[in-house]
Amino acid sequence: MKTYLDCIPCFFKQALEAARMTGASEKTQKRILNELAKALPNFSLASSPPEMGRVIYGLVRKITKKGDPYISIKKKSNKLALSIYDKLKTKVRCFHDGLLMAVELAIAGNIIDYGVKNSLDVNAEITKILNKEDKSIKKESRAIFDYPGFKTALKKAKTILYLADNAGEVVFDRILIEEIKRLDEEKEIIYAVKEKPIINDALAEDALVCGIEKQAKIISSGSDAPGTVLSLCTKEFLKVYKKADMVISKGQGNFEALSKAKRPIFFLFMAKCPVIAQDVGCRLGDVILFYNDGKQLTEDS
Amino acid sequence: MKTYLDCIPCFFKQALEAARMTGASEKTQKRILNELAKALPNFSLASSPPEMGRVIYGLVRKITKKGDPYISIKKKSNKLALSIYDKLKTKVRCFHDGLLMAVELAIAGNIIDYGVKNSLDVNAEITKILNKEDKSIKKESRAIFDYPGFKTALKKAKTILYLADNAGEVVFDRILIEEIKRLDEEKEIIYAVKEKPIINDALAEDALVCGIEKQAKIISSGSDAPGTVLSLCTKEFLKVYKKADMVISKGQGNFEALSKAKRPIFFLFMAKCPVIAQDVGCRLGDVILFYNDGKQLTEDS
Repeated sequence: MKTYLDCIPCFFKQALEAARMTGASEKTQKRILNELAKALPNFSLASSPPEMGRVIYGLVRKITKKGDPYISIKKKSNKLALSIYDKLKTKVRCFHDGLLMAVELAIAGNIIDYGVKNSLDVNAEITKILNKEDKSIKKESRAIFDYPGFKTALKKAKTILYLADNAGEVVFDRILIEEIKRLDEEKEIIYAVKEKPIINDALAEDALVCGIEKQAKIISSGSDAPGTVLSLCTKEFLKVYKKADMVISKGQGNFEALSKAKRPIFFLFMAKCPVIAQDVGCRLGDVILFYNDGKQLTEDS
Repeated sequence: MKTYLDCIPCFFKQALEAARMTGASEKTQKRILNELAKALPNFSLASSPPEMGRVIYGLVRKITKKGDPYISIKKKSNKLALSIYDKLKTKVRCFHDGLLMAVELAIAGNIIDYGVKNSLDVNAEITKILNKEDKSIKKESRAIFDYPGFKTALKKAKTILYLADNAGEVVFDRILIEEIKRLDEEKEIIYAVKEKPIINDALAEDALVCGIEKQAKIISSGSDAPGTVLSLCTKEFLKVYKKADMVISKGQGNFEALSKAKRPIFFLFMAKCPVIAQDVGCRLGDVILFYNDGKQLTEDS
């Protein structure tokens, strides 16, 4: 996805929130905004928002010298999500279509996103997810929800590349991965995390803590942007990305980075910002399962 | 009021909205944001937000060569507000305390503000104002509402300087000014508008169209910022400002410009942005009648 002009005010908001997260003084916060302002004229709108995200959080890191300001938040998110693992499993087990419930929970877990909403109350959000009626997510919030296509592709796929999004959310991904493996234990699943700390995006350590390694191989994409920006990925990752029978991409950041990709991808995310909602053609807050066959005219690869 | 760091993302949002209002191409919109970005490092947080507002709208004017992109909106707002003048007068006449109703309507009219909310539906907002129960505004939305102080000061004052805010809103000001004159026709009222087009702020022509001149003398403050920034005002205005027995300041922009002023001022506005609400100590959307005696330690004069 290209960067819309409406993303620009939001870049400054994100920079300010990230700066505050490090405990920086007001003077340092202003310095970070000034540096971002200096970088803006050189930023092309043809780049995707995660590429600017990388610049923003890089600036915050460079100026504040805080390597990973979200580390305690990530740990807390993992812990909270793990504490409801059994309840999530029960929801999947008790629903008539366990895979559908697992897909919906995986998308619901995408609410754990500090890039969009800094003052997120993960506890409250998780309670909301758990209190949802024990039915699938209401149809009206599923404007784009290609579950039949997902199920068909899943049946055929031998190797599946699963692109992680945020810490905490990983537990919800694990639920979906376990359900996929329960239906067919022969499937090979590769779970790709980010290379370096970026907002609350999941790193290898988060995937390990959340118990992914029992069902999937954990790799790094090489990207240190808040999305899988292919030009930043390692050769090893790109090989997996090209060869995988199916790619499941979690979260807005990965959608922004890969929406114009040339290969088929299933995007699972909540539309949490108005720009994304407009780009996708859905309403804010919608639960999205979007299949892109990769055959459109593309800017990215 | 100083500029908060949270105002910075909003500056970019305002610049983008103003650029779009001129019909500028996406390329020109980006150019405007780039120029704003270049100006940001030199902007001191000790300045008030309207001083940056002046820079923003100046940039939009310079780059798009559109002198007054809000002119048709201002005309429409005046027309709409004038069309309900009789209904507003009836509300004042039928209420047990006509002055209180006139004060509340004058504040309610402050909703006509394109700086805060670009996609404002003036028609819908005015309907909301008219459909309000025929009682005074609910007490819980009046966290700061020094009506007794206002009434006392009004009784004593011979000359009153009334600082206008937006086009359309002028009709609501007229209702209040007429009520003040009905109670004491000896009062001398001076109605100060902005010098040059800035967002939808009222100019002399708006005051004339809305019928202010029958009750008050219309002058320009000299300020072309979206607030009465004293350093931009004419000597003639400053003389009136210093000598007036009472100053009634309408709107957020005037509050931002004058909250630290050294003279007593009654500020009438709706708290339409979270930064203002936090600065004042009220909730978003609150109706404010705030008296500042001008005796605090000040940055401004």
